Amino acid sequence: MIFRQMFDAESSTYTYLLADEKSGEAALIDSVQEQAERDAKVLKELGLTLKYLLETHVHADHITGVTRLKTQFAEAKSVVSAQGGAPCADHLAQDGDLFQLGELEIRVLATPGHTNGCISYQVGDRVFTGDALLIRGCGRTDFQEGSASQLYDSVTQKLFTLPDQTQVYPGHNYIGLTSSTIGEEKQHNPRLGGGKSKAEFVDIMDNLKLAQPAKIMEAVPANLKCGNLSEVSPA
Amino acid sequence: MIFRQMFDAESSTYTYLLADEKSGEAALIDSVQEQAERDAKVLKELGLTLKYLLETHVHADHITGVTRLKTQFAEAKSVVSAQGGAPCADHLAQDGDLFQLGELEIRVLATPGHTNGCISYQVGDRVFTGDALLIRGCGRTDFQEGSASQLYDSVTQKLFTLPDQTQVYPGHNYIGLTSSTIGEEKQHNPRLGGGKSKAEFVDIMDNLKLAQPAKIMEAVPANLKCGNLSEVSPA
Repeated sequence: MIFRQMFDAESSTYTYLLADEKSGEAALIDSVQEQAERDAKVLKELGLTLKYLLETHVHADHITGVTRLKTQFAEAKSVVSAQGGAPCADHLAQDGDLFQLGELEIRVLATPGHTNGCISYQVGDRVFTGDALLIRGCGRTDFQEGSASQLYDSVTQKLFTLPDQTQVYPGHNYIGLTSSTIGEEKQHNPRLGGGKSKAEFVDIMDNLKLAQPAKIMEAVPANLKCGNLSEVSPA
Repeated sequence: MIFRQMFDAESSTYTYLLADEKSGEAALIDSVQEQAERDAKVLKELGLTLKYLLETHVHADHITGVTRLKTQFAEAKSVVSAQGGAPCADHLAQDGDLFQLGELEIRVLATPGHTNGCISYQVGDRVFTGDALLIRGCGRTDFQEGSASQLYDSVTQKLFTLPDQTQVYPGHNYIGLTSSTIGEEKQHNPRLGGGKSKAEFVDIMDNLKLAQPAKIMEAVPANLKCGNLSEVSPA
């Protein structure tokens, strides 16, 4: 398996490149519009065929690279959760859906709560959690049909039931950490670990008092159109 | 093996945490002073014993975390190349030196050229190249006894003789890429790959016309004292 983690410094977003070495089939998870050229160059230099553009959710902090990457990889299929409200995607994913890259299998885990259309992708002993589970944190739950109660269930009943050694690759990190494990987050996540109850978690999330993401008014409408800015209605 | 790549956004430096799972013995490669607290927290949460603080070279762009980390991990031994001019280190490394973390073996490869005291660390199928070999680039050679001719030899005669699938973890990246492979750099590195001659490489390096690193006057004297600011003479 070819695996690359890539970082967009402006939005602190991680994009992941996964590929099956034998067939050369590849997927990108959570591409970023401004990094599309960088990602395309890596794919081409490695001689890979981009098969899937997987989104963990409709992002509020950056515009997806889907539309821009499709101009260079016309065969690539975009994937968003069926609950994401983005019917522009080629495939509207449900919990349990499987995608194949050669012999590599990518499994969809519905993990709503940060948004109602959040999904994680599991590949072998790695899980790509988007904003459901972050390193020692989690995504906020105060917009885009977010629900702290639902996020608690997604993390504790779904992600935390994966084996402890599963490597967690999040959608963001803001202090330079790149990965964690399920075991670590069960133990050390200050919001969800150490056996915190749902009531404790909901109380934490209800009192974060965060400002809106800087790009939300631009990013959400664009991502609901899969990053196709020509289809976004002027405000 | 426990492996973590960590990033300092200000200097775009990668710090690497390596540990043997069974014994809990750990090493940090190229720690950054401002990130010492973050790194210490990760080490402690993972229940690891910090045995080595390994430096790839005397950095010109950030101050090492060695002295700050030693206040929390008194048993940790610092390692710098014997050619690095930093006798403050607990061990002055030579080509071929071996360090053990439990059953994990770390091998020193002398790779001078960016500075005359640059070393890389090889661990299984990974190599930590500092600024000798970067992703699609290399460190500059115009200060700290740098030598383009020497760097060419280090990369082509030493690093490029490792197996093609060896994963390359560099000291820096400025566009969000986190790793590469020896095979890729042999093919795609615009300065050193594709069979470039030494003369072509020296010509490229002689014409970069780069400004001095912003922190060089602060970082080099501090790193020659292993990050112990109280030992740095006032200018």
